[in-house]
Amino acid sequence: MTIKFELLKKSKESQARLGRLYTSHGEIETPIFMPVGTQATVKTMSPRELKEIGSQIILSNTYHLYLRPGHELVKEAGGLHSFMNWNLPILTDSGGFQVFSLAKLREINDNGVTFRSHIDGSKHVFTPEKSMEIQMALGSDIAMAFDECAPYPCSYEETRKAMERTTRWAERCLEFHNHPYQVVFGIIQGGTYKDLRIQSSKELSSLDFPGYGIGGLSVGEPKSLMYEILDEMMPYVPDNKPRYLMGVGSPDCLVEGVLRGIDMFDCVLPTRIARNGTVMTSRGKLVIRNAQYARDFSPIDPECDCYACKNFSRAYIRHLLKADEVLGIRLTTIHNLSYLINLMKDIREAIKNDRLIDFTKNFYEKYNS
Amino acid sequence: MTIKFELLKKSKESQARLGRLYTSHGEIETPIFMPVGTQATVKTMSPRELKEIGSQIILSNTYHLYLRPGHELVKEAGGLHSFMNWNLPILTDSGGFQVFSLAKLREINDNGVTFRSHIDGSKHVFTPEKSMEIQMALGSDIAMAFDECAPYPCSYEETRKAMERTTRWAERCLEFHNHPYQVVFGIIQGGTYKDLRIQSSKELSSLDFPGYGIGGLSVGEPKSLMYEILDEMMPYVPDNKPRYLMGVGSPDCLVEGVLRGIDMFDCVLPTRIARNGTVMTSRGKLVIRNAQYARDFSPIDPECDCYACKNFSRAYIRHLLKADEVLGIRLTTIHNLSYLINLMKDIREAIKNDRLIDFTKNFYEKYNS
Repeated sequence: MTIKFELLKKSKESQARLGRLYTSHGEIETPIFMPVGTQATVKTMSPRELKEIGSQIILSNTYHLYLRPGHELVKEAGGLHSFMNWNLPILTDSGGFQVFSLAKLREINDNGVTFRSHIDGSKHVFTPEKSMEIQMALGSDIAMAFDECAPYPCSYEETRKAMERTTRWAERCLEFHNHPYQVVFGIIQGGTYKDLRIQSSKELSSLDFPGYGIGGLSVGEPKSLMYEILDEMMPYVPDNKPRYLMGVGSPDCLVEGVLRGIDMFDCVLPTRIARNGTVMTSRGKLVIRNAQYARDFSPIDPECDCYACKNFSRAYIRHLLKADEVLGIRLTTIHNLSYLINLMKDIREAIKNDRLIDFTKNFYEKYNS
Repeated sequence: MTIKFELLKKSKESQARLGRLYTSHGEIETPIFMPVGTQATVKTMSPRELKEIGSQIILSNTYHLYLRPGHELVKEAGGLHSFMNWNLPILTDSGGFQVFSLAKLREINDNGVTFRSHIDGSKHVFTPEKSMEIQMALGSDIAMAFDECAPYPCSYEETRKAMERTTRWAERCLEFHNHPYQVVFGIIQGGTYKDLRIQSSKELSSLDFPGYGIGGLSVGEPKSLMYEILDEMMPYVPDNKPRYLMGVGSPDCLVEGVLRGIDMFDCVLPTRIARNGTVMTSRGKLVIRNAQYARDFSPIDPECDCYACKNFSRAYIRHLLKADEVLGIRLTTIHNLSYLINLMKDIREAIKNDRLIDFTKNFYEKYNS
């Protein structure tokens, strides 16, 4: 299977692009931010709220759904869209990153990864074929190839080995994958080594995936280093395919990623910090749990028109968070996701009007104020 | 202040009544169930969801809001309606029940109750006047008189003392209360002693409150005893005023209460059991966390048209609950509240059509099936 990706416009000022990706559950406008629904739910949100804030696609996690409730059960329910009642596009990751970051007692060899569940300690094996099998059962629109993600920091030799294995696994994924509408994106690895990133980009490009994830960034390295790596590698990532920077979701990184030619992003950051009482605003982050907001009857972000900002004050939301009331983290989550989705909408508008550089300047001025 | 209560119909078959209560934030149709928003939020629900399921009035808690965020802060926010963005009627309890059931190290005398906060152990005093002051600051539509609620079981002598003190405190509440639109309901006590219940009903009636709460029932005594007490006392509770059976919310008790002439109910039961994964259905309770529902792709209650039942399966909701996902308890809460609100709607319809006895028979047949 392949997927139609229309490149609507290339920015004259930067590497930014405007695109449209066609999936069997609808189109998405790129550049785009994808909310993460790890366990078949974007934490605290209902599907209709996700639609209301303009989510066009969500991500879900192969590793988590395989362990609980099990991909066979999801398949029995008619697939993930039906199980969770989300009829717009879904992207599933490969489980690769999670077995390396969450699971216990991993053993890696060329065949795959043996690991123990973080839930009950039970033993499991993920191979490229198994990852494809699970993702086909889930029935997402976009599956990701099973990859080995090197940590940060990591030696050149180790990073090279993981990168080369990722290429071999990518071939096996393509070989095994067979689904009426689901497509598989390859994942480029290579850690923070520019030559490895370029080698991986070239190797994966030659496999002609319908889209490319860039994995193994935003795993602890400084932002400036991530930007440098992107600068070096992006010329080698096919520009007629969607390019997805995995696990990146802070507002400044979204802007910088788009400037470097990224089309898709995902991250748990907006939902995770929301649950800790931190909100993203046009003037930067704000820890709404802080005492200074106890009697602040203004909205989280006066420039935002989400349900939280239109109807509730910082003081009320702070009260809910302090009192451990679920509505508190619901409202901060609605707001943070709305903020990123609106940011991407503004970015798309700026690309359209050839004013992304100007937009970026204004963004930073306010964001750092 | 008084309140307009229109008695639309008295059932020919039982003591049930159909009524309409006019508050400054809108009318409510009785008999009615009031969802409980202890800390200025009905747990897990947003105000618009509450409206969507047909909540006409909610209850909130004086004790909790006094401790956190503080009634003065709520007053600064423009009152509780404004603070929590709920523009329909609100009833606040007096804090009496909570200081006896939640707070620590209580000392009671005729002046009031000294207690320690369950949150931080700080020392506080509630008097009838203080309870009125807090409720006036909150600006609810209906305030409750400060009462002493005897536990169950409790000796006759102790129950009598608490009941007599409740009458003296009720007088002080009326004396002190002064608010442009808020009204105060008296609370009848007397534990499980019929003569004390009758005495309390008579004493409170003579104070001419615009409505009456029946407190101190559903505190551990058998349901049959509660029904007996109601049978004995209701002839002494003014029938031209709304009658509110406090803290009662199991479906069968709602039906039995209405048959005995009750107009208003509140209880944390539907929201509390929802968070433990238990749902109320037309066929009785169902513990949706149980393994038997893992692959049950039918809705919680096929007869229900709430958002949870229209869009999600038992299997999905069970998965969410097992995975500690907030959406799980949101959906069970939406359903349980919808169930009780729809039950009351059906009851009102049955009273209107003089078929409440028939309705009750059908209700029990299915409920116990």
